Amino acid sequence: MVTKLGEFDVIARYFRRPARRALLGVGDDCALLGPEAGQQWAVCTDMLVEGRHFLAGTDPRHLGHKALAVNLSDLAAMGARPHSFLLALALAQPDPAWLEAFSGGLFALADEHDIELVGGDTTRGPLNLCVTAVGLVPEGLALRRDAARAGDELWVSGTPGQARLALGHLLDEWQLPQPLLRQVLPRLEQPQPRVTLGLALRGIAHAAIDISDGLLGDLRHVLDASAVGAVVDVDALPACEALSRQPTQRRRACQLAGGDDYELLFTAAPARREQVLRAGEQAGVALTRIGSIEAEPGLRLRDGAGRSMPADYPSFDHFLQP
Amino acid sequence: MVTKLGEFDVIARYFRRPARRALLGVGDDCALLGPEAGQQWAVCTDMLVEGRHFLAGTDPRHLGHKALAVNLSDLAAMGARPHSFLLALALAQPDPAWLEAFSGGLFALADEHDIELVGGDTTRGPLNLCVTAVGLVPEGLALRRDAARAGDELWVSGTPGQARLALGHLLDEWQLPQPLLRQVLPRLEQPQPRVTLGLALRGIAHAAIDISDGLLGDLRHVLDASAVGAVVDVDALPACEALSRQPTQRRRACQLAGGDDYELLFTAAPARREQVLRAGEQAGVALTRIGSIEAEPGLRLRDGAGRSMPADYPSFDHFLQP
Repeated sequence: MVTKLGEFDVIARYFRRPARRALLGVGDDCALLGPEAGQQWAVCTDMLVEGRHFLAGTDPRHLGHKALAVNLSDLAAMGARPHSFLLALALAQPDPAWLEAFSGGLFALADEHDIELVGGDTTRGPLNLCVTAVGLVPEGLALRRDAARAGDELWVSGTPGQARLALGHLLDEWQLPQPLLRQVLPRLEQPQPRVTLGLALRGIAHAAIDISDGLLGDLRHVLDASAVGAVVDVDALPACEALSRQPTQRRRACQLAGGDDYELLFTAAPARREQVLRAGEQAGVALTRIGSIEAEPGLRLRDGAGRSMPADYPSFDHFLQP
Repeated sequence: MVTKLGEFDVIARYFRRPARRALLGVGDDCALLGPEAGQQWAVCTDMLVEGRHFLAGTDPRHLGHKALAVNLSDLAAMGARPHSFLLALALAQPDPAWLEAFSGGLFALADEHDIELVGGDTTRGPLNLCVTAVGLVPEGLALRRDAARAGDELWVSGTPGQARLALGHLLDEWQLPQPLLRQVLPRLEQPQPRVTLGLALRGIAHAAIDISDGLLGDLRHVLDASAVGAVVDVDALPACEALSRQPTQRRRACQLAGGDDYELLFTAAPARREQVLRAGEQAGVALTRIGSIEAEPGLRLRDGAGRSMPADYPSFDHFLQP
């Protein structure tokens, strides 16, 4: 027997939990937060659309995880501690099994970061997941895009390119043997936002950004905002086994321009190198020095032998890409 | 000649303006707000989907207005002063004329309330507008749904039912003569959020809600949250000329269950009656006493002669309605 789920049943059954940190959570016109003395609020919103950000038929548990993860990644890139989030959700129809799995994935990640859902909106429409995340950062400690300085070293966390390598397999652009696919698929389906790393880098890093649109494209945002340039040593980019086994061109395209990596790209003074490495250890993620910031504007790529390389990898653009 | 607009062009051309109140606005991973001593942050998000919340072909200027207005209405219902907002936008393709009109309508309302766009997301997909609004309310002064008390009088602002009356004409459920349509259509297309009224009611009203899902449906949310009941005098409901001229059944259905009214429904002690009326004058909106809150749970409708009436008007529900 199928009981028809209403909008308010959906909220009550799958999304309402008692507020712990918010003064007022799900169930009023607005949520109420704070005040928090000496803290700034970091706020961001990211929308995931079926067919653009995920393929039809994606495991709803992964979707719940990812809708929140991509927003926590933005908080991480500011050095903000996640506090709470809102969810606006358009669904073709409310399917209990889908909602159970989706909310399960969402709250599993929320619980991992000790944050809560405080509000949102539920409506009918083509599948669309829009999360707004809220975090706290002490005044003056946010990691901004415009804070890179000439002389800084350029660092990246984890192994950029894995998500794009997995996506290429799913899109039949290339075939990965199962053992290699299993290495990279989790980075596409269940990216781990680098929240602990962002917090550990407060007061150490200058500029930071998450490389959701691809490493070079997001680096360009930092360079533009900071009015500086950079040189990147392409052969210094870290690679997992799966990436290492690809033809050089494909590997580099994944590493330099693959979207959907939720790693952090950041800059820090060379004198901070030890502290940077300790921050990585604290956060349990490998950090790699991949270049440096220079006063001369522009983005310059070199290979391991110091030869100059073209830097014409495009940033991911939802309107320019097919 | 058509130049193809990229995602970052769209943001730069139509949505980036210098931050004035935010510490950091559009262009970083997150916006940074505050701190604001003694103030709580009110946060809400509302998603508008083509075909559900607006008809295909709706004037994009009205859409820009409405996407923000429905969120400011939620802030108004908390007694919060609007501070800033984020916009997540999915578009089939970036059409300059559409974007110009949409952002024009959006920023005209934003300027009216002296608030700014501080962040967001732009992507390709079936048209979907998701605004997150942020406001400030001094600690302890928020107008919550759970604060209605037995003995309170029940008030409503403006003339509920106008938006539904206009929608019925657009959907060919009934025909309105042009002069009457012109009276009610602006309430559907460009609702005015009752922000000034919400601020004026701080410290005077007990509970408040905006009646976006219909008067009775939203009143039920207040009654449930406050664990009280209410009696509503149906013939006390205010009606404009267009509503007055409708058959009684249609008029009452619009007034009691019409969605998309962004008026405020609120409760206040009878001793506050003069202050309530002054708040309405300050805000330039008519306020009408339509009933009272009682200790006995449940919703009871009476007509002007005191006769009991069925209260079986449904609340608007995106999953249960066709």
